[in-house]
Amino acid sequence: MQETLKQPNEIPHNEKLLSLKYEGFKCVEISRWVICGLIGFLTGLIACFIDIVVEIVAAYKYKIVKRYIDQFVVEGGLCASVILWAILNSAFVMAGSLVVAIFEPIAAGSGIPQIKCYLNGVKIPRVVRLKTLVVKVFGVICSVVGGLAVGKEGPMIHSGAVVAAGVSQGRSTSLKKDLKIFEYFRRDTEKRDFVSAGAAAGVSAAFGAPVGGVLFSLEEGASFWNQMLTWRIFFASMISTFTLNFFRSIYNGNPGELANPGLINFGQFESGAYKLYEIPIFICMGAVGGVLGAGFNALNYWLTIFRIRYIHRSYLQVIEAILAAAATATVSYILMYCSDDCQTPGEHQAVEYPLQLFCPDGQHNSIATVFFNTPERSVRNLFHNFPGSYNSLTLFLFTFTYFFLACWTYGLTVSAGVFIPSLLLGAAWGRLIGNLLTNSGVSIFADPGKYALMGAAAQLGGIVRMTLSLTVIMVEATGNVTYGLPIMLVLMTSKIVGDYFAEGLYDIHIKLQSVPFLGWEAPATSHSFTAREVMSSPVMCFNRTEKVGTIVDVLSNTSAKHNGFPIVSDFTTNEVYLFYSTQVIKFFLHVFVERAQLKQRKLLLKDFRDAYPRFPPIQSIHVSQDERECTMDLTEFMNPTPYTVPQVNQAHRWVWGSSPPWGALRRTGVPSWVCPLPLQPYALCCRVGSGSP
Amino acid sequence: MQETLKQPNEIPHNEKLLSLKYEGFKCVEISRWVICGLIGFLTGLIACFIDIVVEIVAAYKYKIVKRYIDQFVVEGGLCASVILWAILNSAFVMAGSLVVAIFEPIAAGSGIPQIKCYLNGVKIPRVVRLKTLVVKVFGVICSVVGGLAVGKEGPMIHSGAVVAAGVSQGRSTSLKKDLKIFEYFRRDTEKRDFVSAGAAAGVSAAFGAPVGGVLFSLEEGASFWNQMLTWRIFFASMISTFTLNFFRSIYNGNPGELANPGLINFGQFESGAYKLYEIPIFICMGAVGGVLGAGFNALNYWLTIFRIRYIHRSYLQVIEAILAAAATATVSYILMYCSDDCQTPGEHQAVEYPLQLFCPDGQHNSIATVFFNTPERSVRNLFHNFPGSYNSLTLFLFTFTYFFLACWTYGLTVSAGVFIPSLLLGAAWGRLIGNLLTNSGVSIFADPGKYALMGAAAQLGGIVRMTLSLTVIMVEATGNVTYGLPIMLVLMTSKIVGDYFAEGLYDIHIKLQSVPFLGWEAPATSHSFTAREVMSSPVMCFNRTEKVGTIVDVLSNTSAKHNGFPIVSDFTTNEVYLFYSTQVIKFFLHVFVERAQLKQRKLLLKDFRDAYPRFPPIQSIHVSQDERECTMDLTEFMNPTPYTVPQVNQAHRWVWGSSPPWGALRRTGVPSWVCPLPLQPYALCCRVGSGSP
Repeated sequence: MQETLKQPNEIPHNEKLLSLKYEGFKCVEISRWVICGLIGFLTGLIACFIDIVVEIVAAYKYKIVKRYIDQFVVEGGLCASVILWAILNSAFVMAGSLVVAIFEPIAAGSGIPQIKCYLNGVKIPRVVRLKTLVVKVFGVICSVVGGLAVGKEGPMIHSGAVVAAGVSQGRSTSLKKDLKIFEYFRRDTEKRDFVSAGAAAGVSAAFGAPVGGVLFSLEEGASFWNQMLTWRIFFASMISTFTLNFFRSIYNGNPGELANPGLINFGQFESGAYKLYEIPIFICMGAVGGVLGAGFNALNYWLTIFRIRYIHRSYLQVIEAILAAAATATVSYILMYCSDDCQTPGEHQAVEYPLQLFCPDGQHNSIATVFFNTPERSVRNLFHNFPGSYNSLTLFLFTFTYFFLACWTYGLTVSAGVFIPSLLLGAAWGRLIGNLLTNSGVSIFADPGKYALMGAAAQLGGIVRMTLSLTVIMVEATGNVTYGLPIMLVLMTSKIVGDYFAEGLYDIHIKLQSVPFLGWEAPATSHSFTAREVMSSPVMCFNRTEKVGTIVDVLSNTSAKHNGFPIVSDFTTNEVYLFYSTQVIKFFLHVFVERAQLKQRKLLLKDFRDAYPRFPPIQSIHVSQDERECTMDLTEFMNPTPYTVPQVNQAHRWVWGSSPPWGALRRTGVPSWVCPLPLQPYALCCRVGSGSP
Repeated sequence: MQETLKQPNEIPHNEKLLSLKYEGFKCVEISRWVICGLIGFLTGLIACFIDIVVEIVAAYKYKIVKRYIDQFVVEGGLCASVILWAILNSAFVMAGSLVVAIFEPIAAGSGIPQIKCYLNGVKIPRVVRLKTLVVKVFGVICSVVGGLAVGKEGPMIHSGAVVAAGVSQGRSTSLKKDLKIFEYFRRDTEKRDFVSAGAAAGVSAAFGAPVGGVLFSLEEGASFWNQMLTWRIFFASMISTFTLNFFRSIYNGNPGELANPGLINFGQFESGAYKLYEIPIFICMGAVGGVLGAGFNALNYWLTIFRIRYIHRSYLQVIEAILAAAATATVSYILMYCSDDCQTPGEHQAVEYPLQLFCPDGQHNSIATVFFNTPERSVRNLFHNFPGSYNSLTLFLFTFTYFFLACWTYGLTVSAGVFIPSLLLGAAWGRLIGNLLTNSGVSIFADPGKYALMGAAAQLGGIVRMTLSLTVIMVEATGNVTYGLPIMLVLMTSKIVGDYFAEGLYDIHIKLQSVPFLGWEAPATSHSFTAREVMSSPVMCFNRTEKVGTIVDVLSNTSAKHNGFPIVSDFTTNEVYLFYSTQVIKFFLHVFVERAQLKQRKLLLKDFRDAYPRFPPIQSIHVSQDERECTMDLTEFMNPTPYTVPQVNQAHRWVWGSSPPWGALRRTGVPSWVCPLPLQPYALCCRVGSGSP
């Protein structure tokens, strides 16, 4: 038996893969394209579903509330209508929050931080499961209909990622359904590539920005530039926006009228309607956005710490969400009630649910249009309604209250994104600045709409701090390349100013969740680091043939959560360092024990794929004293070409190369200088050292 | 003296760079942004200059020719007007061709293959010099005005690259002018990064496609994804299109009317004016484009081989160019003469130079509008003129003749791009298909313009075979994201079909110029290659301290054009392989000799930067017998962290990783498994082996 164990048969991945002929590769390549097409299609479909359900339910809600409010103006009964509104909203939010809190807390928030981590190789448990998707979709519908200061765009990115993770594996572990297809892709690297495509498809559907989606995926997840992968991601994005567009055109009764490529549509901006001398003003607005964004983030940071400390039980979280919904409704109501900003509807801008309140006949309350609309439509109105549609006091009050509402809302236990609230907030104060400039009497600042656009960009940039992808998303959503330069300058300014005061919102939340996320740049203090200094000591390593007992002991040692181990072939030369993946070892051990018990089964590549991604933990394996004495030959499981780092000063390469090792290590997701990338890129914690063991 | 030589002072780059404090890095970073802004601005300015000069001169030419032709119809004198036209065109082309042939042959063609090579680390001599830029700009003006079947878009990419290479170095070696700024960037890696930005700015100015420009640079040149670099490239692109737009708006008399972001403008396409059932038709058109493109490439391949063999003298090249110009004019004339396709000008489509010829009064010859316009305008006309503007016979004849004219023209000794001729060709047969469908009586195919667009995409994709960047360029030029999916499908089909028959045009020309270009994917046969197999043998390597005589001998050995050498510190462990750059050695040797002679000067980092990029060849250094016996300590020049490859089968990593070493080696530009990347990414030929020396 000792003999058999030393030579396990047919296990290595390498030979299996090498035996794939050219046709096999072609076939795999075609499967990849098919999967990307499916990912795009399903993501678009989900976006379309969310959009249509929100539209229908929200319309119904607005109608009921409007009737009651109109009635109150005539007959009195203020309290009743406020309470009705607050209760309706709270009910929706409660439903969404309950589902999230009870079934899948990971579905809370926008999901962008989680996907960012996933793409960088940090596995957050349950983040790409089917259940998460269902909860997310239901939750986001509830929170948007519930009138919270949220958007449905961020969650689309998460949804796309889940779709991708599911479709690419050809099975659902939750549903216990295995279609027996795409088995080749049941590996971390392949799965991550598809998840990139899913995230891109999500962005694409959310903003009608396929290129922006591709760049989002690259910006958040890529270390290397891979032409075919990028091309496939682009394909998924295109299919996604097309699907959304197509099905929505059917819903709107004009099949084939492909006019709305995304969930949010900024509307058509006039070509180059800005002048050169307005650019400095835009840049100043960028700075304002940076400051406001940093304020938003700092406030949200304290709030989140408070939540972590005191609101960690589910029922408290649900109550907080309900309170937020009720407060949002009440505050909106008070704003509307106090406002005397009456507007006559223009020719080109129909108001769907005009609330007359105390306005003269034929006019409607201006601030009510903001609250009695989906936030997407409110943003568009702020961009495009003719000058004078909103008076400055209205905009100021709205900005002021909405700032705190949105800040409170982000981090609630509901599925919701921060993109739209940021845009709305920025559009409001941007339009306010536009109004002030128009009123300044200088006729050159005619259109406050473009200031609203720049304000929206500034505020969003100040909060999320994305660079390239956000610019492209904004330019694509604007549909006009001539606005590209000012948008870019605004986003740059807001990022620089914002970074001076506080981190980006997503980064704050990633940190607060204690995720070992590796940023883009090596920290400034690492210039003179050597690999030796970041290594854990003593280095745990294995020999090529190792006793089962030793392996089990090392793997069971939970204090050192290593994910890969150097295998040293020859101590005198220590020529090559070889690494090893914990999960593979665990699995192997598992099967080894199984086989020792059954004495017949052979371990195949298929076994790995079937078990992926939920390998059994080492603790579940019982190894007898006899078995502990067996030796295992680890050669077959080794990754023979791991990344290695010479003993010299790392800073050399960092300073010299346009390819910092930091970048290459991003995908491994952990602060380690050496990681077994090809085998296990999602190492949750691999502090394995290198150098001379 | 021996002592001094063993310890050369103050030479190493590493310490110098490490001593840069945080502020220093900040400063360098800001300089990078300033340079990128400048690159964008100057590239936009050059594009604007070319555009305006072409417009003015071409208008003048058309007026003269038109007067003569109009006269001939009334009074007779056919010959005179043809000859006048042919001579005028030939004169322009002769001027352009002479300048190119005599002063800078590298400026011929579009320059895209050369820039592609440069971005991949293959240095083609003189490709980014100031002289090349001047010749290119003059040449492209002449060839476009000369009525050849060429565009001015491809050369813009080359121009942007030259601008970038010049600006980033803060000096011009040709003008012998050193501004003493940006000295930090006088290195290959930095320079290449800026050239990427320049190429992107060129694309951006040419097509009004800043995102397309960024993706072009990434697709052609990137191995690693670098966030800040991409962001800077995007900045350069934005500035470039903005500058072009702004200055052209001034020229057009509407300062600030930023309506034309690029040299070519596809005009506004109606949102989603295609139907789902048209997509299969588009895909078929993609296949047609692939076949026609492959035919074009194959024909051009044979023509280029013929040229290499028989037309290699300058005067023959100039004569061929003149002949082509005369032939183009004559053929156009014959086409116009034989055509009886008369059109009444529509309300919305003014014809600038309507040629009546034999048409009734108030009408004009349809085919003449194609030739009496810049090709950019002709493309736009084919996209947007109302149905029935061209009859099918006209389009067929035009496609047929223009195919051969364009094929002949590409590869002439003139500066000219192939983008616009491809678009024009494709638009013509696309519109032909559209016409046929419209005439088929089925009213659903109402607009032949969109078929022209798809034909243009198909033809361009079939010829150049770019993927991602071309899609984005086309989508941005179309200005409508809803056309993204069909354009992408068309380009994919045309690439797949085209690749089946022949290579892309640029790749053909790169191969014919014998450039050691490394493609995206490792060749299929390399799956089972080991590093050992591609190594040259015996491996040349140095010890840490080496005799000057040995170094000189190895470097002088021209048969082995190595660019880097392993330095082995300890043969018994052969623990780390260290590499070395020839040019640095050469330079060092040079100064070493100089110093030995002057016995006082010390070598500084500044010396390297001042000499960059034209280091003296080893042959120019005279080393005496005494000096040969000295030893040099090479430690200070080593790159301590070179890329290394273990002795195992490379295929492992290729199959496993999403990061093939092939990709990482792309930048080094040569088929070598191990290259001293950080020190010398532009190794023209580094076949140095690794493994155990």
